[in-house]
Amino acid sequence: MEGIGDDCAVLRFPADDLVWSIDASLEGSHFLMDWMGPGDVAHKSFHAALSDVPAMGARPLAAICQLSLSSRVNEAWLRAFARAQRIVSEQTGVPIVGGNITWGKTVGVVTSVLGAVEKNQALKRSGAQPDDEIWLLGELGLAAAGLRILQTEEELQDVRASERAVCLEAFRRPHAQLGSTENLARVATSCLDVSDGLVRDASRLAEASGVALVFEPESLQRILRPELKSVALALGTTPKELALFGGEDYALLATGPSAARPLGARALGFVERGAGVYEAQGESRVSLLGGFEHGA
Amino acid sequence: MEGIGDDCAVLRFPADDLVWSIDASLEGSHFLMDWMGPGDVAHKSFHAALSDVPAMGARPLAAICQLSLSSRVNEAWLRAFARAQRIVSEQTGVPIVGGNITWGKTVGVVTSVLGAVEKNQALKRSGAQPDDEIWLLGELGLAAAGLRILQTEEELQDVRASERAVCLEAFRRPHAQLGSTENLARVATSCLDVSDGLVRDASRLAEASGVALVFEPESLQRILRPELKSVALALGTTPKELALFGGEDYALLATGPSAARPLGARALGFVERGAGVYEAQGESRVSLLGGFEHGA
Repeated sequence: MEGIGDDCAVLRFPADDLVWSIDASLEGSHFLMDWMGPGDVAHKSFHAALSDVPAMGARPLAAICQLSLSSRVNEAWLRAFARAQRIVSEQTGVPIVGGNITWGKTVGVVTSVLGAVEKNQALKRSGAQPDDEIWLLGELGLAAAGLRILQTEEELQDVRASERAVCLEAFRRPHAQLGSTENLARVATSCLDVSDGLVRDASRLAEASGVALVFEPESLQRILRPELKSVALALGTTPKELALFGGEDYALLATGPSAARPLGARALGFVERGAGVYEAQGESRVSLLGGFEHGA
Repeated sequence: MEGIGDDCAVLRFPADDLVWSIDASLEGSHFLMDWMGPGDVAHKSFHAALSDVPAMGARPLAAICQLSLSSRVNEAWLRAFARAQRIVSEQTGVPIVGGNITWGKTVGVVTSVLGAVEKNQALKRSGAQPDDEIWLLGELGLAAAGLRILQTEEELQDVRASERAVCLEAFRRPHAQLGSTENLARVATSCLDVSDGLVRDASRLAEASGVALVFEPESLQRILRPELKSVALALGTTPKELALFGGEDYALLATGPSAARPLGARALGFVERGAGVYEAQGESRVSLLGGFEHGA
């Protein structure tokens, strides 16, 4: 790859299919400047953008970045941002091959990512089949808990500093699920990344596939992290509410035959004929509705 | 191409090299909402982003778009924007294969474009050779005149409505030079798009190539459009100042052997050993310095 300094990056790729996405992390929409240091903005914008690529069963190849700066940003901020972006690019092995900087009223990072996947192997939202298992890769609810901690004016009672830190870190420095995508692409029937809340994203997958997704209560219970439980209590909500309706998890939700469940994926329930997203109560189905609107 | 509705677009390309760029059109940085209707924003953001691709001697294949909206935008605005974006995509033959919408404080469009060019044929800024001719494809100064008309509070004296309209149109609806890039890629030694003012962009090309660019006064005079002359007078400046230091022209500046000058390209001067950008005065060289800062 070459071309930094020219109008475009120049890329040469193998005979794979390419996947291509664009994603924004904007002050006022996704974060407030008081909540995130320059390193957090660099880390989160990069991983949030990368996350769309494993969601297609693909591996990220390269990224390109549009950075908007405002008068609130000084040279130290910009240097720290650039250093952190270089580090996260190295850590993920995804080079930043080009970009653009603009000055305006607010700070924002728009990142476009190219990825590669074996020909005709890209995972869609539309392939889920009745009797498939539902798989989760990653954690749910921690980032939403971190956001609510930041939005809460008062000091939280009965929350340990370490629990608080886990939630804040999940909000400020999420990690795209880059590990296991090759295996996932081979066995999954459908996939998407969970960024707007599990239920909302699950209903997108259900709709695209023309099926119903049914979560099992004991499976939902099993994935709740201990940190989530005590922080949720202090926030006056439940860990399950945060896990189902929180956002910015950047986990992967996938479906596939239970016999083929990949290492690291946890079962959440099953696919059946129908439409919508439900929690199973024996033979009954309780509809799960709602979701997460980005907006600081 | 497929994938709208999934996390990424999926693309299959021939064995060409790919070029890849990202470009922003942001309220407050590039335009004010009072200056541009939704159709103007759609048109300009798309052509401004496309312009980087012919600057590499490449043809655009597809675009992907991050749209930021604010509370100042209503449904009618959004519908008109979407319709105009579809039209400009059809007119240019460049499909929009994916995107993302976010709500925030300001309106902005970030567009990433992929293009293709024959293997190892991408035009760089760094290939200009002494004795090459300097070529211009497109017009200079009209968009800068349009911007200044919009920034001027008073009514302009002695300017015809049609002259005013040409300048406003150049600012609001620029056209990327998509026509002649294949031929250009074969014969040019270097190229970039002129978006920050001729002199500033020419100095980038000169620096990247390690040469001096010398413009001939009679050639500069020849490219000045009649509309530019009367509007410049009314604005209290000169057409040459607008052409040399204005911005957002989205013209192409290229270099190559004079015998190979492509159809539609106009000669502006020549390349010689040295560094910097000059106007020739006989055997003397007058340094041209300055440029255009984006900022409404």
